[in-house]
Amino acid sequence: MASPAIICVAITGSLPRKADNPAVPITVAEQIESTQAAFEAGAAIAHCHVRNDDETPSSDPDRFDALMRGIRAHCPGMIVQLSTGGRSGAGRARGGMIPLRPDMCSLSVGSNNFPTRVYENPPDLVDWLAAEMAAHDVMPEIECFDLSHLYQAAAMHRDGRLPRQPYCQFVMGVRNALPVDRHAFDAMLSAKRHLFGDAPWCAAGIGPGQAVLNDWAAGAGGHLRT
Amino acid sequence: MASPAIICVAITGSLPRKADNPAVPITVAEQIESTQAAFEAGAAIAHCHVRNDDETPSSDPDRFDALMRGIRAHCPGMIVQLSTGGRSGAGRARGGMIPLRPDMCSLSVGSNNFPTRVYENPPDLVDWLAAEMAAHDVMPEIECFDLSHLYQAAAMHRDGRLPRQPYCQFVMGVRNALPVDRHAFDAMLSAKRHLFGDAPWCAAGIGPGQAVLNDWAAGAGGHLRT
Ligand SMILES: [Zn+2]
Ligand SMILES: [Zn+2]
Ligand SMILES: [Zn+2]
Ligand SMILES: [Zn+2]
Repeated sequence: MASPAIICVAITGSLPRKADNPAVPITVAEQIESTQAAFEAGAAIAHCHVRNDDETPSSDPDRFDALMRGIRAHCPGMIVQLSTGGRSGAGRARGGMIPLRPDMCSLSVGSNNFPTRVYENPPDLVDWLAAEMAAHDVMPEIECFDLSHLYQAAAMHRDGRLPRQPYCQFVMGVRNALPVDRHAFDAMLSAKRHLFGDAPWCAAGIGPGQAVLNDWAAGAGGHLRT
Repeated sequence: MASPAIICVAITGSLPRKADNPAVPITVAEQIESTQAAFEAGAAIAHCHVRNDDETPSSDPDRFDALMRGIRAHCPGMIVQLSTGGRSGAGRARGGMIPLRPDMCSLSVGSNNFPTRVYENPPDLVDWLAAEMAAHDVMPEIECFDLSHLYQAAAMHRDGRLPRQPYCQFVMGVRNALPVDRHAFDAMLSAKRHLFGDAPWCAAGIGPGQAVLNDWAAGAGGHLRT
């Protein structure tokens, strides 16, 4: 209860571009600089996406490798978490960076709607990504966009597909998925406790929901995404 | 509280075949006979899928029309609900039977995983199906495979995409979606009350979960699927 909240910084995300916000770090050099500033301000985990030269999302392992090396050199002890999210690639290309052995990778275990499309995480791809992480000793952060995703993480932990106690992140505020609603947050937290006891967890609010979720998570003993 | 539970019978479903269970009604004539037996035993709603001659799922409006006419002739007053589920067709073909003006159609408002694939309900298709139902004065039954689907129904009701108070069905026990778990059931019911007050609702358990869900739903004032 008195243990300090861990702050996870998502320096780039998968969507915003320079045209939306000139401050968004896009190149690996910009990302490293921006991560170092967050690290010096107290962030303990760097949640990383990479981009192509034209700013579109990428899952190129070479770019992830350069980013990870830069963060390790400039932010000693910072936990590096690489995204396997579906905005950046399709199928097994989403997991091409797992053999780089970052500390953590994000892992979606279910499907849900996004603002204009289905966020597709087919069961066989989920199982393959989880197996790759297990094989390379990478700790997954389970991205929980809905209640069933917590249950799916529990089922995968029970049968060994997730060897470690799942570390779950509630993601709220994506249009057509779970909204930023306190009642829904409480349902997610209650299910987390039901399934994983007092295991650590974190929460991320999208867009204007970010500050609200940080508030709720800090008040309930969770870690934060900024 | 003292109002009797409404029993909704799913006579065929989208998957089981004669080879799995010789008693499954497949032809429209078999379906009508079996619905009449359920009607005489007290079922008030018939949840209908249709099949091709080779027993594969279909969403052929002509078959739905023949089935609906048969049920109306043999089961006077029975509510006919036609499935727009994704196992039977793709894209807008899923809604081809809506202009037949059945009493109800099922409507999925979000996506989730099924045992071997993603159950895809992209936002634009969901909106189109809801608009078709509104245009033909068909009452949707919202198939809620996850918590966010209740919230999505609420959002669609707020902005007029679902003109009527949503009538929601909790669907539990599909592998890779929400399991048959009392804690999850309570979370769904609590969200239903939070969003829709004491509006009627129902629950369906898949396979061995059916008896359990009927028990829970009956005990909590919901309607049943058999
Ligand atoms: Zn996190
Ligand atoms: Zn991310
Ligand atoms: Zn029903
Ligand atoms: Zn059905």
